Amino acid sequence: MSAGSDISGVAALLFDVFGTVVDWRSSIIAEMGAFAAVRHRQADWAAFADDWRGLYQPAMEEVRSGRRSWTILDVLHRESLDKLLDKYGLTGLGEADKDHINKVWHRLMPWPDAIAGLKRLKTRYIIGTLSNGNIGLLTRMAKHAGLPWDVVLGAETAHAYKPQPQAYLANVELLNLRPSQVMLVAAHNGDLAAAAATGMRTGFVARPREHGPRQTRDLTAERSWDVVADSFAALADALGCAP
Amino acid sequence: MSAGSDISGVAALLFDVFGTVVDWRSSIIAEMGAFAAVRHRQADWAAFADDWRGLYQPAMEEVRSGRRSWTILDVLHRESLDKLLDKYGLTGLGEADKDHINKVWHRLMPWPDAIAGLKRLKTRYIIGTLSNGNIGLLTRMAKHAGLPWDVVLGAETAHAYKPQPQAYLANVELLNLRPSQVMLVAAHNGDLAAAAATGMRTGFVARPREHGPRQTRDLTAERSWDVVADSFAALADALGCAP
Repeated sequence: MSAGSDISGVAALLFDVFGTVVDWRSSIIAEMGAFAAVRHRQADWAAFADDWRGLYQPAMEEVRSGRRSWTILDVLHRESLDKLLDKYGLTGLGEADKDHINKVWHRLMPWPDAIAGLKRLKTRYIIGTLSNGNIGLLTRMAKHAGLPWDVVLGAETAHAYKPQPQAYLANVELLNLRPSQVMLVAAHNGDLAAAAATGMRTGFVARPREHGPRQTRDLTAERSWDVVADSFAALADALGCAP
Repeated sequence: MSAGSDISGVAALLFDVFGTVVDWRSSIIAEMGAFAAVRHRQADWAAFADDWRGLYQPAMEEVRSGRRSWTILDVLHRESLDKLLDKYGLTGLGEADKDHINKVWHRLMPWPDAIAGLKRLKTRYIIGTLSNGNIGLLTRMAKHAGLPWDVVLGAETAHAYKPQPQAYLANVELLNLRPSQVMLVAAHNGDLAAAAATGMRTGFVARPREHGPRQTRDLTAERSWDVVADSFAALADALGCAP
């Protein structure tokens, strides 16, 4: 724990989802491999996943900057996908196929330690999402993957995309808590830095394979976050949850 | 089912909570009885519960009318409670006691059939709240009572109190569904009428003891709602959920 941090008042844990709870990259590669086998398409699906995710921040930045009115992530994902179809040979697809591919974000699979860890954490804390995903996306993902959230919150319930302060503060307020009573759990130092700036507590869980075998960023905690762990099991240990 | 209704497209069930899922009146009577025994107070706690609930609609009407800016139910409940303290001999209480009493709404107990029914319904549908309770209240109630919601929605995520149309429509939109794909389940004909007017599907579950043994309203379905049932088990049967 960092000097001066006090996590004894934490009542709720809110989780970044893409990369922290679920392995978006492996999920997309696996889904596209299965889709491609049926549709007789071939491409580098790892590159496809990385390209699609690469369009994520620029798309949200249009909203954050005010150049575009509030738009949910399902719509941004679809616009990004449409830009990549030709490059990856996904031509001539019908609307149902394109929608199915876009909704892969509703079907992402959790990291192997995630569900068991969340169940332990849930015995002691309110657990919920604080994701840039829209509420419908996060709700369907939770049902599909078995994520035991108490509450589903995110950018859409704040009408602000992380790392804007309002994305954190509006959701803390929805829980009738103060920022110091809520911990953001994330695999991304930048997300935690923005949460800490609002007064939230911070938990870093390393996901060194989020971006595949050659990941270069977020390999370790870059500040003395309140808790640093390498799995949700270790996070539950650190937060005093029974095994 | 009513003539012409089509519920085959329903993907989510959103529930009124106070009275439909939880027995607010018995819960308050029991909690106040326990509190009174420890604090040596005596009063008619059934009358207290009814009086407190009686101030609910007038308090929300101040917000619905626009005379008052958005205010969450925890705050309205507390203001109503403060008006009743003297009448029921609850004088000289400290802030901790008053807050504890106010938070009884976070600790309401479910009707006996509710949890088992919700677990069955959850296997086939997205299940969530559509309550005038604030998100923090509903989240804590669910944890306390074991209500297995997929998603916690309500007036606060719409910034509108039922029966205003926006209270329904904003939450349907948060699920990325059309009104015809969402069923409101409620024990109150007026709530269902307002939901139906937005295009939602409707499920009536009779709770003839919500207001105690001399209840006069909402004893039966007053229109041919899409589904009419006398318990969540019967609702799950009617919606084709496995036992």
